[in-house]
Amino acid sequence: MARLIEELKKLPGVGTKSAQRYAFHLLRASDEDAAALADAVRGLKASLRLCSLCNNVTDVDPCAYCASPSRNQRLVCVVEEPTNIEAVERTQTYQGVYHVLHGTLSPLHGVGPDQLRAGTLIGRVERGEVDEVILATSPTLEGEATASWLATALRNFSVKITRIATGVPAGSDIEYADEVTMARAIEGRREV
Amino acid sequence: MARLIEELKKLPGVGTKSAQRYAFHLLRASDEDAAALADAVRGLKASLRLCSLCNNVTDVDPCAYCASPSRNQRLVCVVEEPTNIEAVERTQTYQGVYHVLHGTLSPLHGVGPDQLRAGTLIGRVERGEVDEVILATSPTLEGEATASWLATALRNFSVKITRIATGVPAGSDIEYADEVTMARAIEGRREV
Repeated sequence: MARLIEELKKLPGVGTKSAQRYAFHLLRASDEDAAALADAVRGLKASLRLCSLCNNVTDVDPCAYCASPSRNQRLVCVVEEPTNIEAVERTQTYQGVYHVLHGTLSPLHGVGPDQLRAGTLIGRVERGEVDEVILATSPTLEGEATASWLATALRNFSVKITRIATGVPAGSDIEYADEVTMARAIEGRREV
Repeated sequence: MARLIEELKKLPGVGTKSAQRYAFHLLRASDEDAAALADAVRGLKASLRLCSLCNNVTDVDPCAYCASPSRNQRLVCVVEEPTNIEAVERTQTYQGVYHVLHGTLSPLHGVGPDQLRAGTLIGRVERGEVDEVILATSPTLEGEATASWLATALRNFSVKITRIATGVPAGSDIEYADEVTMARAIEGRREV
């Protein structure tokens, strides 16, 4: 019982009280329910892992994107979370691969460069395996800090580093654009 | 009475029924109220007009922007409506002048190039008085069509034509960007 409580306390946001409540619930639960939970936890780790190249959540390693011969393996789009890949895939125009950082720089929450999973990307760039890195972190405070840190880390290698455009969203009236977005839309204007 | 009804029917969205209702209301209203309305209508035209250079609503001609010596008179930001100028001014970074089209191309509503007030702008560009035209119409269907039409109309003169950036708004998570915006953010990425 004490061992289970210790293990449950490792879950994010679970303290001693919650862990005890979960443990007593499992004690009272049917054998089948307890076994189902144990199997689900074990099954998760057995079937899902992180791609060893891009850190995407996958059931095969390397993941479908990294293994695809029809994708440009030298064009890498850097995103914060695995779910962000969907946002880019929905455009149906991106033909490169991805790199998932699993977070953003956030000194207030104790997340520094060492906590981000950027190692394999930096390694690939170092070995000259990448032509362009698209920094597709969100244009939030943390996302911008992360993009800026990664751009600096990759600066000395021969790779093109780009940042997705910040601007007025498609279909939206400029009347409703906040001043930072509007300033960036003007600053980032492109010749037509 | 019939003359008043005819004049009232010229207001947008006012048909015979509404015009009659307004007319009878004015008939029953006090002399002071009727005179106040007449004066207000006359006063509006006497004190407010459109700037003869940029079509902005103003009480002096040329307007404060067009008359300002501290603004770059050779950098013109094209907007749909006078209220859009506020959206650009809020950025506190734009130092050029404006040109107001008073609408967008909208074939469905019978608005063609002739209904837009682009004449003075095209004239200024023709005479070589402008270095850059920033097309700051909204990234909507009508706004894009208008920007594209104006870019074509100005193509043969020696002027730089730019379009404000479409992209993920500042402070927003890319998770919530629609696919068109995301596609444009990737397409419009800039080297860092």
